[in-house]
Amino acid sequence: WTPWTLYTRSMYGRYTQELGVYAKEEAARLREEAAFRRLVTERSRSLDLLEYDKSRCAKCRICTVHCQKFLISRVGEDWIFLILLGLVMALVSWVMDFCIALCLQAQKWMYGGLDSNVVLQYLAWVTYPVVLISFSAGFTHIVAPQAAGSGIPEMKTILRGVVLKEYLTLKTFVAKVIGLTCALGSGMPLGKEGPFVHIASLCAALLSKFMSLFGGIYENESRNIEMLAAACAVGVGCCFAAPIGGVLFSIEVTSTFFAVRNYWRGFFAATFSAFIFRVLAVWNRDEETITALFKTRFRLDFPFDLQELPAFAVIGIASGFGGALFVYLNRLIVQFIRKQKAINKFLMKKRLLYPALVTLLISTLTFPPGFGQFMAGQLTQKESLVTLLDNRTWAKQGIAEEFEYIGHAAAWKHPQANVFITLVIFIVMKFWMSALATTIPVPCGAFMPVFVIGAAFGRLVGESMAAWFPEGIHSDGVVYSIVPGGYAVVGAAALSGAVTHTVSTAVIVFELTGQISHILPIMIAVILANAVAQSLQPSIYDSIIRIKKLPYLPELGWGHHEKYNIRVEDIMVRDVRYITLNCTYRDLHDVLLTERLKTLALVESSESMILLGSIERAQLQALLSQQLGRPRRLEYLRQRAQNERKQVSIVSTPSSEEGNHKANHEVRFQISTEESTFSPSRSVSPKPLKPALKRHSVVERGTEIPSSQDSGIALKSLFCAHPEAAAVEIAEWEELQLDEQVNFNNCKIDPAPFQLVERTSLHKTHTIFSLLGLDHAYVTSIGRLIGVVSLRELRKAIEGSVTVKGVKVRPPLASFRDSGTSSSDAEVTELHKLWNRHTNLTLPQDHQPSDSDEKSQ
Amino acid sequence: WTPWTLYTRSMYGRYTQELGVYAKEEAARLREEAAFRRLVTERSRSLDLLEYDKSRCAKCRICTVHCQKFLISRVGEDWIFLILLGLVMALVSWVMDFCIALCLQAQKWMYGGLDSNVVLQYLAWVTYPVVLISFSAGFTHIVAPQAAGSGIPEMKTILRGVVLKEYLTLKTFVAKVIGLTCALGSGMPLGKEGPFVHIASLCAALLSKFMSLFGGIYENESRNIEMLAAACAVGVGCCFAAPIGGVLFSIEVTSTFFAVRNYWRGFFAATFSAFIFRVLAVWNRDEETITALFKTRFRLDFPFDLQELPAFAVIGIASGFGGALFVYLNRLIVQFIRKQKAINKFLMKKRLLYPALVTLLISTLTFPPGFGQFMAGQLTQKESLVTLLDNRTWAKQGIAEEFEYIGHAAAWKHPQANVFITLVIFIVMKFWMSALATTIPVPCGAFMPVFVIGAAFGRLVGESMAAWFPEGIHSDGVVYSIVPGGYAVVGAAALSGAVTHTVSTAVIVFELTGQISHILPIMIAVILANAVAQSLQPSIYDSIIRIKKLPYLPELGWGHHEKYNIRVEDIMVRDVRYITLNCTYRDLHDVLLTERLKTLALVESSESMILLGSIERAQLQALLSQQLGRPRRLEYLRQRAQNERKQVSIVSTPSSEEGNHKANHEVRFQISTEESTFSPSRSVSPKPLKPALKRHSVVERGTEIPSSQDSGIALKSLFCAHPEAAAVEIAEWEELQLDEQVNFNNCKIDPAPFQLVERTSLHKTHTIFSLLGLDHAYVTSIGRLIGVVSLRELRKAIEGSVTVKGVKVRPPLASFRDSGTSSSDAEVTELHKLWNRHTNLTLPQDHQPSDSDEKSQ
Repeated sequence: WTPWTLYTRSMYGRYTQELGVYAKEEAARLREEAAFRRLVTERSRSLDLLEYDKSRCAKCRICTVHCQKFLISRVGEDWIFLILLGLVMALVSWVMDFCIALCLQAQKWMYGGLDSNVVLQYLAWVTYPVVLISFSAGFTHIVAPQAAGSGIPEMKTILRGVVLKEYLTLKTFVAKVIGLTCALGSGMPLGKEGPFVHIASLCAALLSKFMSLFGGIYENESRNIEMLAAACAVGVGCCFAAPIGGVLFSIEVTSTFFAVRNYWRGFFAATFSAFIFRVLAVWNRDEETITALFKTRFRLDFPFDLQELPAFAVIGIASGFGGALFVYLNRLIVQFIRKQKAINKFLMKKRLLYPALVTLLISTLTFPPGFGQFMAGQLTQKESLVTLLDNRTWAKQGIAEEFEYIGHAAAWKHPQANVFITLVIFIVMKFWMSALATTIPVPCGAFMPVFVIGAAFGRLVGESMAAWFPEGIHSDGVVYSIVPGGYAVVGAAALSGAVTHTVSTAVIVFELTGQISHILPIMIAVILANAVAQSLQPSIYDSIIRIKKLPYLPELGWGHHEKYNIRVEDIMVRDVRYITLNCTYRDLHDVLLTERLKTLALVESSESMILLGSIERAQLQALLSQQLGRPRRLEYLRQRAQNERKQVSIVSTPSSEEGNHKANHEVRFQISTEESTFSPSRSVSPKPLKPALKRHSVVERGTEIPSSQDSGIALKSLFCAHPEAAAVEIAEWEELQLDEQVNFNNCKIDPAPFQLVERTSLHKTHTIFSLLGLDHAYVTSIGRLIGVVSLRELRKAIEGSVTVKGVKVRPPLASFRDSGTSSSDAEVTELHKLWNRHTNLTLPQDHQPSDSDEKSQ
Repeated sequence: WTPWTLYTRSMYGRYTQELGVYAKEEAARLREEAAFRRLVTERSRSLDLLEYDKSRCAKCRICTVHCQKFLISRVGEDWIFLILLGLVMALVSWVMDFCIALCLQAQKWMYGGLDSNVVLQYLAWVTYPVVLISFSAGFTHIVAPQAAGSGIPEMKTILRGVVLKEYLTLKTFVAKVIGLTCALGSGMPLGKEGPFVHIASLCAALLSKFMSLFGGIYENESRNIEMLAAACAVGVGCCFAAPIGGVLFSIEVTSTFFAVRNYWRGFFAATFSAFIFRVLAVWNRDEETITALFKTRFRLDFPFDLQELPAFAVIGIASGFGGALFVYLNRLIVQFIRKQKAINKFLMKKRLLYPALVTLLISTLTFPPGFGQFMAGQLTQKESLVTLLDNRTWAKQGIAEEFEYIGHAAAWKHPQANVFITLVIFIVMKFWMSALATTIPVPCGAFMPVFVIGAAFGRLVGESMAAWFPEGIHSDGVVYSIVPGGYAVVGAAALSGAVTHTVSTAVIVFELTGQISHILPIMIAVILANAVAQSLQPSIYDSIIRIKKLPYLPELGWGHHEKYNIRVEDIMVRDVRYITLNCTYRDLHDVLLTERLKTLALVESSESMILLGSIERAQLQALLSQQLGRPRRLEYLRQRAQNERKQVSIVSTPSSEEGNHKANHEVRFQISTEESTFSPSRSVSPKPLKPALKRHSVVERGTEIPSSQDSGIALKSLFCAHPEAAAVEIAEWEELQLDEQVNFNNCKIDPAPFQLVERTSLHKTHTIFSLLGLDHAYVTSIGRLIGVVSLRELRKAIEGSVTVKGVKVRPPLASFRDSGTSSSDAEVTELHKLWNRHTNLTLPQDHQPSDSDEKSQ
């Protein structure tokens, strides 16, 4: 449990399937608890009712309850839930914005107050963000390391049906909210959109839990997924006051298939949330009425000329390349830090050093009297955006002097450099700064920084156009001058669309600016940017998913018609491991050793191969442990003892040597649950642990377990006294037990696992996998099991086909996937060791670290 | 084949499942043809290449081919397809708009030219639309009756995976385009949105066919569905020049689950289409640059006051009720005409009378010098909308006189009546007129009329508000007067949203008006309108789906948490009819007689009940007919003849009596394909045809068939000569044949039908059914078949639960479903008659007309 461990996990952590299993079990436990709690509260409520029945206001109370019931039955619990969600998120968003604004004002005030001394000024300018970011990183790390980063990749995974542990807890909520406020308050180029999606989901999950106290349907799994999908929309919606764009953006980044039902929910909640968010601003006298966040005032009658479209297209294409570059750069930085062992070790020790160093570097470069004067360093992100979307042209006639500087826009003017140079420096510097800043392990997103860079790039093109055509392009006599602000809007939408691989940024831009007059240029630029970016790199969220090794399914490429011709039979694994209805425990045992899939197929017999269902690995392990486990073993020993009428002293202190033996036997009969506990110390060590160490750890656990099984303690010593003889006998007994036929009566069998046919196309398989969130499907032919396809095969088939024919130069993140350290040792079960013992340790089973792909399924 | 038949079909036609089977077969045939054609063209192309190889420009040619290949591999065929689709649709839309504008101008010109004589003027005003509508109805009827109506309900059904015959053919395209142009050119309150969705889909289907000539992937079924989904978006997009709204609207009205992949395609194609559509207007000098269709110019800085929100909410709620009323009214009219036998019969004879009468009524009422003067009758739909969205206030200080009338807005002013009265009359009259007009069997939609009515309603509220608060509501000293045009925008979005049950009308409104400043009021009004309308009535499209008895799956209600508690075991049919692997032909025969499902379950044996797969009914019928069919029968007869060494004269003319017998035998051994051909004359006659009539029709077919089986003609006469003896022997032979075991070798078996578990919740079942477009699923328990759930059970369960607890007053269209005439006689197979013969006709099998619900599955 080194500090670096958690740091790594929070930013580049891996989630294996075992985590999923554990989380599911925990979820089941939580559900049971919640059900119990509800029962209790319901009972207490009915008691309350009875009590009040006798009092005077009984009628009143009953009436209230009836009203409540009526309201719920009419309006529906979902609606109430969505309204509450919207309200809470709007409040959170507004309060957070308020705090962030305060933080930024404080920095400005400090900086302004010390203008007599540049050194002091510099110290104030630099220390403030370093302290805030360090606090944010430290706080996040201590309270909930899961809160670091954007949150959208994780939400995408969760909405795919994977349960990520600790991702939707109150702790994470607190860490995310406070961490994000501090991070944004520091003035670093970080965004709030991604984290807001996560915060809204957290909010929805917590609200569900809270409302389940009042009874209802708040525990249903399908419903939770639906509510989380709505929450994602709310997150974006209340962050930008952009309900429509929010819904669309959340659909695009989190879903592959989307239920129109959820879309409705999302619309409702996001609108309500955006409304409250903006109403709060009005009530706070910040605004006169509800308007857009970054209102623009471009002319309506002639927004742009048709002949300006090539310029917009150029913005789109350039943004596409820029977006891909950003994703690549971001990944490169992560990769670099991971690879440099020396840096890595050093940073491991001082976890807060990396955030502090990055912050120091960035704030030094933006120091306004220093280099910052060439890149409008004193402007906050919001101020930059407002000035960039400004209605006026900065470089009339190409000469900066003619421009009247009002308010913050003055920052763009430099006595020595003209506006073009300032803009270019701003774009280049902010570009790598944003890519670097988003790797800091604090809650932060990349959307807003990218948006601002895009706006600056658009502004640059717009100003150039304005300088080139000072009288406008239109030839019909009327002079319609070029509006560089419009170009900025186009650039912002295009670059953010390219980085996130979405087209809904166009809608977000309309809602942010309150103007839709540039719809066609924006749509064209966004589509071009997407086309370019999608063919070069994955989206920033997919990139993070792959870095974090979350389970994913790649999208089918565009226009690669091989995908229609590849059939399941071409990609399926034909050598399926299965268990038969009449198999023995030995077969079960062997299958469990050789097969690592989460679920196993159950067939009628190895001749008929008729698929009857699938059984989870854990269930089989439970069966095996039941057969060979402590109670039965003790039973056997007791009987043997009775048979041989041996007298054994009840009290005997096991020696260290005996303890070891005992441990070995423990190992032998205990089906470990180790693979479902996520122990960070194991996931990091690249080599399997030494057997001795392992044995030791097992001894530790071995000594813990008996406390819950006191009845066995006495008898256990029975064979400890004669360890060698007992071991032989036990082995014999075991052999007998293993030859018995398995009794599946108490085993949970999924009787309808998903089945495909050999001729199912890759395209359809992909559709079904993503529709239903499968991770494997059996291939059957007239009831006979003939193969299995898992996410892994599918992924290989898709990425293979894309690499061969498509425009992708290399499989995205191929280098990452190779360099991924294996965490397979966590999977080495005690059963495996048992097997090793059976082969008398002469043939040490070479347990190869399985492909890391397999793990991330 | 009465005229009314086709008329009924075109408007209220029913599509049975058999139609689907036939259509699939036909689709398979078409695919084969296309593949063959492609092969041919490819060959001829390679020949061309060879030829050119020798000529001088060989290099040139090869280079071109390479370039083409390169382009396709890089850009992707999908993109080319989408660009072409967008281009074609933009051209179609623009040309159509141009023609419609010409038609409307012509009417105005006629009306204006005859202003000396009111009677002549009236005649001109009335005759013109009557002629156009009659022509449209007649043309549509003759060329392709499928082209009538909106097209969105059918597209929804097609996207659900159902194949509707003749729905995507060139004929339908021609009929729809020309019919729609005439219908809209008549000035009736009809819309072009719905038909445009259909036209775009037609266009995509035809383009697919056309591009398959050049090779490629244009035959894949999944791909076609994807392209149709994109086409729907293009349809709306190029109709309103609203790409984003178009994509969203098409998602909402056609899908339950949506692939984000398709959304991308839709965006791309719709944007391109909208762009071209607007560029054409610029090139035609209609516009200076690309702007919105119905551009508004509301003030940006203070679009509305927070205190105006209650008024917007009122518009939303009222629109919700209005929308539900509209759907109800529309259905009521259809119902009324259907029920009135006398009217029905009369209209049946004169098919064009109904459209003409409706048109006459509507145009009489809108005659400007007559009643039309009180409802701005002389304005076309487009003009009305432009005036309604006007920036100015019509009723300043509540007195109409102060208003300066410019252009078309003058139509709203009447010397005797004030603006409020005109608006109220306009709303009321247009409301029922639109509901009536959309029942005319011409290609037409209801979106635009509803949109205009909504705008008028909004305007009414806005004008009232302006009259009530002449100085605006804002209290801070600055006077911001109320903008009634903003209310009109809100009303338009709300009412059209209520009728179609969509929220994306909000986005369409932004794109249509080019202003997004009223986003929050619009969103609030649309959401409220939807909430009200959805709880009262189905959407107009679902209403039509139910009227036409297309297969559908109702949506799950809101907030009815029973849906989480109902399990599949509660709703499944436990008495599943199945066939076993070792069954005899007799079992097959019996099952086919008693079971009417499209597919039958195949189990291992009736003891084990292990589900092996499902077989289509048609396949089983083919098996049976193979066993008992003509070739084998003839074989038997030939053998018998050889055995008995009988001499038969080869040439014998069968008498009329013998012919009858022959027919009977024909009937006996022929598995009819009648149920897969859709014969309108059968679907309409409410009673089963008389046996004699049936026999006659069979004779006709019987005489046709031998032509393809010449080898049998000679031998057939064999037993015709001794009909009675032969019949007995044949019956014996048949009994023997029926006792044989079925050989499934040549039978297509679906080895992986969809399976559910007993504990699957209704909610999940619904999700899976709508995700995968299933129409039935088997319920299994550890491989054992224990039940089946079809769309019908699911529908009952959902509607049942909604009726009991929900806000729906009655199951939507319950009365319709009862009154539906059964077309089950088309399903009476000859097998059935065979069975009747077996029971010696003493026990006439009471063939009850099956529930019409079952048919529409």
